[in-house]
Amino acid sequence: MIEFRTENGGNINLDAASEAFLKVQRDEMAGWLEVPTKETDLEEIKRAAKKINSDSDFLVCIGIGGSYLGHKAVIDALEGAYTPSRTKILYAGNSLNSFALSKVLAEIGDKDFSVNVISKSGTTTEPAVAFRIFKEKLIEKYGSSEAHKRIYATTDGNSGALHDEAVANNYTRFIVPDNVGGRYSVLTPVGLLPIAVAGISIEDLIAGASGQSTDLEMAFLYATYRTTLAKHGFDTEILATFEPRLQTFSEWWKQLFGESEGKGGQGIFPASVVYSTDLHSLGQYMQDGRRNIFETFMRIAELSDKVKVPKTSSDIDGLGYLEGKSLDYIQEKALEATVDAHRAGGIPVFEFIIPELSAKNLGALIYIFEVACAVSATMQGVNPFDQPGVESYKKNMFSLLGKP
Amino acid sequence: MIEFRTENGGNINLDAASEAFLKVQRDEMAGWLEVPTKETDLEEIKRAAKKINSDSDFLVCIGIGGSYLGHKAVIDALEGAYTPSRTKILYAGNSLNSFALSKVLAEIGDKDFSVNVISKSGTTTEPAVAFRIFKEKLIEKYGSSEAHKRIYATTDGNSGALHDEAVANNYTRFIVPDNVGGRYSVLTPVGLLPIAVAGISIEDLIAGASGQSTDLEMAFLYATYRTTLAKHGFDTEILATFEPRLQTFSEWWKQLFGESEGKGGQGIFPASVVYSTDLHSLGQYMQDGRRNIFETFMRIAELSDKVKVPKTSSDIDGLGYLEGKSLDYIQEKALEATVDAHRAGGIPVFEFIIPELSAKNLGALIYIFEVACAVSATMQGVNPFDQPGVESYKKNMFSLLGKP
Repeated sequence: MIEFRTENGGNINLDAASEAFLKVQRDEMAGWLEVPTKETDLEEIKRAAKKINSDSDFLVCIGIGGSYLGHKAVIDALEGAYTPSRTKILYAGNSLNSFALSKVLAEIGDKDFSVNVISKSGTTTEPAVAFRIFKEKLIEKYGSSEAHKRIYATTDGNSGALHDEAVANNYTRFIVPDNVGGRYSVLTPVGLLPIAVAGISIEDLIAGASGQSTDLEMAFLYATYRTTLAKHGFDTEILATFEPRLQTFSEWWKQLFGESEGKGGQGIFPASVVYSTDLHSLGQYMQDGRRNIFETFMRIAELSDKVKVPKTSSDIDGLGYLEGKSLDYIQEKALEATVDAHRAGGIPVFEFIIPELSAKNLGALIYIFEVACAVSATMQGVNPFDQPGVESYKKNMFSLLGKP
Repeated sequence: MIEFRTENGGNINLDAASEAFLKVQRDEMAGWLEVPTKETDLEEIKRAAKKINSDSDFLVCIGIGGSYLGHKAVIDALEGAYTPSRTKILYAGNSLNSFALSKVLAEIGDKDFSVNVISKSGTTTEPAVAFRIFKEKLIEKYGSSEAHKRIYATTDGNSGALHDEAVANNYTRFIVPDNVGGRYSVLTPVGLLPIAVAGISIEDLIAGASGQSTDLEMAFLYATYRTTLAKHGFDTEILATFEPRLQTFSEWWKQLFGESEGKGGQGIFPASVVYSTDLHSLGQYMQDGRRNIFETFMRIAELSDKVKVPKTSSDIDGLGYLEGKSLDYIQEKALEATVDAHRAGGIPVFEFIIPELSAKNLGALIYIFEVACAVSATMQGVNPFDQPGVESYKKNMFSLLGKP
């Protein structure tokens, strides 16, 4: 079970958070609170994953924003904690960068691959362009009929360009539920198909996100603390971890909170660090820079003793006092030292203690953060589920590109 | 030549910046202004690189903070723009993470490798621990005498644990000049040896950083704008790019500015984004969140037409108007659209226009950012060259670990 720790133990009134949650529950975009949603058939996902595992060395996941960050976050976080399938997940269509796209094409080479195109509308420029390119490559390699059997479209259930194309060409289809927005969609087919293909148990992931009352309470506590801090000028939040495997998870978190809260001229600015690496980079700023920052740690409780400091005959490097100690133990002490140092430096610090990196715990953490985010935004008086600002650059771009 | 662009053309008084620069030049830690420094013998570096290329599949660079970020930034940025040597650069000792370290060991397997340990003192915990582990592995594989020939120590010229060990064991030694701090050290042997080993021309890199008067002026302009903005409440700067290969370069920039400015309760908070990916993540916040942000773009002018949008028989995805257009062209329009949208949204935007990704241009950009950073910090009344806050967590950690 995940734990939440604060400096002052957590005696705080949660009424405003509970009230905000009631409002969230009534929102038409709150479908992610029920996981899996009605439209999500786990057996169907597992069948598709099994076929992809049987015929593909690579699955190219084409999507941007919420259509790739969630599953990449889970797959990266669990590296080493599950037995990977033979199918490696690659990512495309999350930028317009030709170098990045060429690298994916080069990695595939002449190996077997399938494509999972993930887009509610099918017309978002980045994934649509990438899909054209990979579809052409599939048809070139397998012919039209077999290519269509290697395309998995996760899209709107009723309409849209990708829906229509998928129906016309008989692609295997999965549904992005109408009541779940992109950044809350990792536990729908958007995230579940790639996660299953990678070899991770989607049942465990979903079991973790079942919405235990203790998880809800943690989310309320976290939301209440952070919105209170925001009112007092702490307007930048750093998500910190000592686990590099959680880096993409931090990117997922930044999208979740940044897009949900950053509107109408307000919002807590979301940033992230991976320690101890970044203690020698942003560490100085954290310790002693502008005091408008609070910090939230994702801390893994489980320590391995696989790698230890070796004994040497001389102590020329002065590390003798660490001989035989595991790196995880030293890292744990660095974490405690950092939390203490930052608190002493005037930074409010929260900790989510995660027993170990597992699908179940990640599912719980996703659920906690999603609830906390929707509740926080609601408490700040903004809609947690829209993203009107994302349209501005698109509008300019379509005009520059002469879109009809 | 790199160009600097602002919305209002750059008519601004640079007197304060010039004055700050005079102060920077007189500082005893301003050795990086002369590149290469007296202690840096390029021929010696190239000889060592040649030997490593001849006998090693991997070079493990052991260092943290300024002792790895600069060369990793350059090597990652130039991927695809130079012919890589046979020696792949790996990184260790930039964290205490056992999973990350185990991955490096696994990648080496039974292949040939050398080690470049980079630490002024030799006693920083992260690199010292990693060095013990890789040294043990070298001795195991090659025996003591040959192992010592495969260790390259970049360290203090006169004293310190690593210096003493290097002298005792006759490692090949390179000097971290006394008058250059870690985060300004990429163009000293700290960065130059790994960069040369990778196959990049260190002469070109250094030629770019020769300190042209136009580069100095750009640095003054940038420093003047950003410190003026900081005075008016714009206290968060986002370094933005559409080029994923510049991601590590952004990490280098964050260390440079964060450690130089973030002290005494002040400083501009440095963050970074890679677009268009992050337009679907932090984009909403950038467009419409709290208006305390300004944005600095690194923009690559050169466009390749290697990857184009393929023609298809049907226009079901609505991309017909992009057929035959290159991805780079579309991405360029997305960039222009973003700059316009963010300016319209109330974000001051600066642009560094880089003709193409080359060693020479990167050298120039490094020089411009280093000067701008030292000048900015000086204009804000803080010492650009110390990092007192980094000691706090170390002190706590040593106490928790029972260091004698």
